[in-house]
Amino acid sequence: MNISVIGAGSPTKDGYRLAENIGRRVAERGAVLICGGLGGIMEAAAKGARSAGGITAGILPGCYAGDANPYITVPIVTGMADARNVIVVRSADIVIAVEGKYGTLSEVAIALKIGKPVIGINTWDCADEVYKAGSVNDVMDMVEHLIKEKKLE
Amino acid sequence: MNISVIGAGSPTKDGYRLAENIGRRVAERGAVLICGGLGGIMEAAAKGARSAGGITAGILPGCYAGDANPYITVPIVTGMADARNVIVVRSADIVIAVEGKYGTLSEVAIALKIGKPVIGINTWDCADEVYKAGSVNDVMDMVEHLIKEKKLE
Amino acid sequence: MNISVIGAGSPTKDGYRLAENIGRRVAERGAVLICGGLGGIMEAAAKGARSAGGITAGILPGCYAGDANPYITVPIVTGMADARNVIVVRSADIVIAVEGKYGTLSEVAIALKIGKPVIGINTWDCADEVYKAGSVNDVMDMVEHLIKEKKLE
Amino acid sequence: MNISVIGAGSPTKDGYRLAENIGRRVAERGAVLICGGLGGIMEAAAKGARSAGGITAGILPGCYAGDANPYITVPIVTGMADARNVIVVRSADIVIAVEGKYGTLSEVAIALKIGKPVIGINTWDCADEVYKAGSVNDVMDMVEHLIKEKKLE
Repeated sequence: MNISVIGAGSPTKDGYRLAENIGRRVAERGAVLICGGLGGIMEAAAKGARSAGGITAGILPGCYAGDANPYITVPIVTGMADARNVIVVRSADIVIAVEGKYGTLSEVAIALKIGKPVIGINTWDCADEVYKAGSVNDVMDMVEHLIKEKKLE
Repeated sequence: MNISVIGAGSPTKDGYRLAENIGRRVAERGAVLICGGLGGIMEAAAKGARSAGGITAGILPGCYAGDANPYITVPIVTGMADARNVIVVRSADIVIAVEGKYGTLSEVAIALKIGKPVIGINTWDCADEVYKAGSVNDVMDMVEHLIKEKKLE
Repeated sequence: MNISVIGAGSPTKDGYRLAENIGRRVAERGAVLICGGLGGIMEAAAKGARSAGGITAGILPGCYAGDANPYITVPIVTGMADARNVIVVRSADIVIAVEGKYGTLSEVAIALKIGKPVIGINTWDCADEVYKAGSVNDVMDMVEHLIKEKKLE
Repeated sequence: MNISVIGAGSPTKDGYRLAENIGRRVAERGAVLICGGLGGIMEAAAKGARSAGGITAGILPGCYAGDANPYITVPIVTGMADARNVIVVRSADIVIAVEGKYGTLSEVAIALKIGKPVIGINTWDCADEVYKAGSVNDVMDMVEHLIKEKKLE
């Protein structure tokens, strides 16, 4: 099972902590953590996942594996700039958005377009289909609910 | 100069008419009309542009040029599914959104992320940076303003 | 009908002349000239096509329309680096390779993989399926043959 | 360190065995095994890597993670058809080609274009830059040589 955590490269301190906790919980749950591979929320989620011994894949926009943050175990080097956002979302069984700007909004929109469940925390409020979570526990409860409902295991 | 018109495959009758008029005006202005190449808003805009003798490029998500609507003079066949949305936006000097669902929202978000000016009519209201137009004339006035401001000719 | 002319950015003088002549003949035939949008063979083919009043689409690897050579009427800006090679080939009804290095070899290989007819002149000799032409007239005779055989009009 | 093993979906029995052995050795070396995620050589290499407890990433051309062979631990779902070949190669520190048809040839060509070292065994003989190996041991000796030369660890 793949879970993608998306969000901006320049989050708030709170956002960073949230993403780190979510990343850790995702790895504890046994899922692969997918993210965009760079800094901010992407780094925080990967850092959390690594702290629990998880696998982290970073779908990089540039042409160099060295762009990846230090917590990425599987750098995927697309060289496709923002088109890599589509891969971040399409590779996910569940998408979790933490804060985020326009790049994140594009990922949420693509996720909804192609039918991926999206859980958001402190993020864009553009669609009823996004489950708005109030805490990390709330996020993870929804993850469990989706795993059961969609038989992801 | 390229102008992209984006919007859903299943627009309202009003949306179709708006896009057709905008497409015609874009071609009269001498710009290449870029769109996603399929039906609905994409077809309407291309139809309008062709009625004024313009060039229309359709950036297709699938693997077959035959997927293009009949008003596309230059079918670009990406085979990249939704990742083609990024190309629709990146190829534009100006993006005009007419109505639209999640695919359109993803395009608006990517446009704002990479700094393309976006004019919207009856579309997503997710960002102050999108100029909200009330009519085709309003859209085209804003197009003229942007052409001057950004020296697009 | 789209015809793609592929080849390296640093051709021989002979290669440049060949591509320019082929581009002109492609446009005279009424086909859209597709190429990678940059210099060398891509520029030569587009220059030839423009001299005959044709439409030229350049599928650019970078993020800026300004990268296009001056003979491109429809710049398509992918931002996808070498992955744009796939689009150059997939958008073609017929692929014509003039000289070329590894980028061209990748395009020939993808064309053969997805079943596009390839005509080569002074190019890679890696597959029997590539029709080896000896002159511009030979190239265009084969183009006519393929148009009839595959009912491309 | 990422090592990509590329090759056709319909290999010979010998090719399958070679790829399985190479995959195992790649994992024993501590590298992530990258492949195209489908059957044949891709499956064999992933199977080998899993037998040694390695991480295997499959860069899938389609839109569904379920397309991955059963030995893929990190399915990356591109939805980009053959354009995913570029990602398979760009994500690699070293590319190993086993047999293969036109898809493989396209990957070898892109690898050479962007400067990735390529080791081939029973594969296309189109370029001097491809190191032609005669056995799995020969492949792995070259891998060690490249790791030292390019300081990949």
